[in-house]
Amino acid sequence: MKIAVLGGDGYCGWATALYLSDKGHEVAIVDNFARRQWDFELGAQTLTPIRPLRERLAVWKQLTGKSIESFVGDVTDYEFLSTFVRDFEPEAIVHFAEQRSAPYSMIDRKHAVFTQINNVTGTLNLLYAIQEFVPDCHLVKLGTMGEYGTPNIDIEEGYITIEHNGRKDLLPFPKQPGSFYHLSKVHDSHNMMFACKIWGLRATDLNQGVVYGTMTEQTALDEALINRFDYDDVFGTVLNRFCIQAAIGQPLTIYGKGGQTRGFLDIRDTVRCVEIACLTPAAKGECRVFNQFTEQFTVLELAKMVESGARKLGLSVELESLPDPRVEAEQHYYNAKHSKLIELGLEPHLLSESLLDSLVNIAMKYRDRVDTSVILPQVNWRNPHNDRHVKEGVTPKTSLIETGI
Amino acid sequence: MKIAVLGGDGYCGWATALYLSDKGHEVAIVDNFARRQWDFELGAQTLTPIRPLRERLAVWKQLTGKSIESFVGDVTDYEFLSTFVRDFEPEAIVHFAEQRSAPYSMIDRKHAVFTQINNVTGTLNLLYAIQEFVPDCHLVKLGTMGEYGTPNIDIEEGYITIEHNGRKDLLPFPKQPGSFYHLSKVHDSHNMMFACKIWGLRATDLNQGVVYGTMTEQTALDEALINRFDYDDVFGTVLNRFCIQAAIGQPLTIYGKGGQTRGFLDIRDTVRCVEIACLTPAAKGECRVFNQFTEQFTVLELAKMVESGARKLGLSVELESLPDPRVEAEQHYYNAKHSKLIELGLEPHLLSESLLDSLVNIAMKYRDRVDTSVILPQVNWRNPHNDRHVKEGVTPKTSLIETGI
Repeated sequence: MKIAVLGGDGYCGWATALYLSDKGHEVAIVDNFARRQWDFELGAQTLTPIRPLRERLAVWKQLTGKSIESFVGDVTDYEFLSTFVRDFEPEAIVHFAEQRSAPYSMIDRKHAVFTQINNVTGTLNLLYAIQEFVPDCHLVKLGTMGEYGTPNIDIEEGYITIEHNGRKDLLPFPKQPGSFYHLSKVHDSHNMMFACKIWGLRATDLNQGVVYGTMTEQTALDEALINRFDYDDVFGTVLNRFCIQAAIGQPLTIYGKGGQTRGFLDIRDTVRCVEIACLTPAAKGECRVFNQFTEQFTVLELAKMVESGARKLGLSVELESLPDPRVEAEQHYYNAKHSKLIELGLEPHLLSESLLDSLVNIAMKYRDRVDTSVILPQVNWRNPHNDRHVKEGVTPKTSLIETGI
Repeated sequence: MKIAVLGGDGYCGWATALYLSDKGHEVAIVDNFARRQWDFELGAQTLTPIRPLRERLAVWKQLTGKSIESFVGDVTDYEFLSTFVRDFEPEAIVHFAEQRSAPYSMIDRKHAVFTQINNVTGTLNLLYAIQEFVPDCHLVKLGTMGEYGTPNIDIEEGYITIEHNGRKDLLPFPKQPGSFYHLSKVHDSHNMMFACKIWGLRATDLNQGVVYGTMTEQTALDEALINRFDYDDVFGTVLNRFCIQAAIGQPLTIYGKGGQTRGFLDIRDTVRCVEIACLTPAAKGECRVFNQFTEQFTVLELAKMVESGARKLGLSVELESLPDPRVEAEQHYYNAKHSKLIELGLEPHLLSESLLDSLVNIAMKYRDRVDTSVILPQVNWRNPHNDRHVKEGVTPKTSLIETGI
């Protein structure tokens, strides 16, 4: 089928675009390279040496004979976005094109406002473009498990039946997001539910857990197709950081008590989940929510898994506790449902099996590229004016302002 | 106490500023006159001839000896807003400074995006400005009962205890807003809860019902202090429209079945509720929610009340049904709690007692100013490109873009 991948030059987007192309779908990538610009802003870079999009796509074509067309522009620019949607006529649009870092959104006011405006405007534009030009198109939108926070009850997939004073109703699951970024995703979710209701659009909101892993069958074909591996304090995730710390012989830094529990999944499951969603679209008027993760772990459990995996490779690893830079429960109940994608055919990869192949070994292979100055947390939730060191002096992208609303 | 009223030139803001000034508080108004500009854009105007802010304030000073300082600027402009907050040092900030019309937000994509960016950015800026300069200041934010939609269970005040699979938690009440405007308020609510949690701010979110009435004790002092009375299809509310239609001998236009039930309150209760909230501030770190309305009615009940009231004045009135331009349930369960403000001392005015004094008589007095071309609905929720007639050719304000984020 014809599938557009918005944000197709990013970490999840790149792996997804290649996977869908490999499976025979006609894929187009839309990207404005904002993610690469944020690296410049933060003075950080992916551990793995990624190539420019044009080069990546040329190598993919050479190796597989498959073409992926790329469209360079910003989804907050409606003229660009709607022209693309009108001309490409996608049957499904996979929307990764958002600012996706919680710490980035918590640097200061400008980054908070930018994150919310960028994400909310992009998704609103997309809803209007679909309505205007491809009303049957299925929107597959990346949300996050972080929208739910850590309630003291089981987390359902998007909706919950509430009984109250002798009556009941199926209602959106209450959200308690933990950063201005996570809040932007909650805003998107509400906007999407409404657009599906009033215009009869079809959407799937994938509330994704923390993604790990670098390798997919497709990116592994050639060094030129390698995916991002972010380990810096702003865009890196906890598991990547632990692997890097193990690889360079520094202690694994656990924030607070380490009882923070989150859902995780292998990037090979991300790409499969997206395909599953595309192949079994939501009904007209339906805003469906899937919780997209496969296993849940505490931070401490992750640290111990990395410690034990690294030991098998002859690395000696210590654990160290730091004050938590985030405002979050460090010990809490957590039980999130995630059966809908399994029911549709997902066969999960397990972290215990991928840890060495796709994480620690990558960290080892590229450890000479590690910049130790960007590993420890520099963004504190309690401080609204984090003086995050800006090496290159680039400020957040301003195309939203330049192009108008 | 020192109270800033953001949006103090608007309908609720003006009445609130005068009331608080009358009660002896030191009041400052912040406004960018966006509301007056939207009148130009829509080719509509308030039934009542309101005066420029400067003139209103001079008359207030002359009549009462009390000064209200005014600061002209946009809350989406952080430099302006934060300078004001730093210099005025308010103990409470009452935040009315948002685009508050559901139909306006549903005109087209630009108006939807504008509404959400304007409202969300303004409130985010305010949270940052409070945190930066007056961390003990109490934010009294106007939300709307429309955030809840019409669930099939009782609506609680902001939070609900949910029992689920043998566990329970007190969680934000699930929101099902019915327009891009109402969605913007839901976004604000989530952002405020988070800011209170991470920075220990204090906030009260007043989920207000539909406000009616023009007269308060203060605005009635002089014709020059008169408040707005909006009856156009975009900013007018159903009750005002019915009163106008009765006054000019046109049928009262009911959308659909008329079973839509909403909470209502007299503007004299709005101003009192705001003072109550200011005088009994939320605790540090608390984001408190009050449902601010006094009675609930169906649209059909309202029509019949206006019909019967108008008959007492010798007017003959008919009811007429139009297809509902909104996407909403036309018959539904509705039972919304609203006891917290009563517990704090609110003594409600009832619609049955105010109808003739503050609504139908005003409509009669100024009926020569009625523009019949702006009464019937021109914005349909199902149509993302409403061709709302623009008499003056003014587009939505662009200061957000001009000033940067």
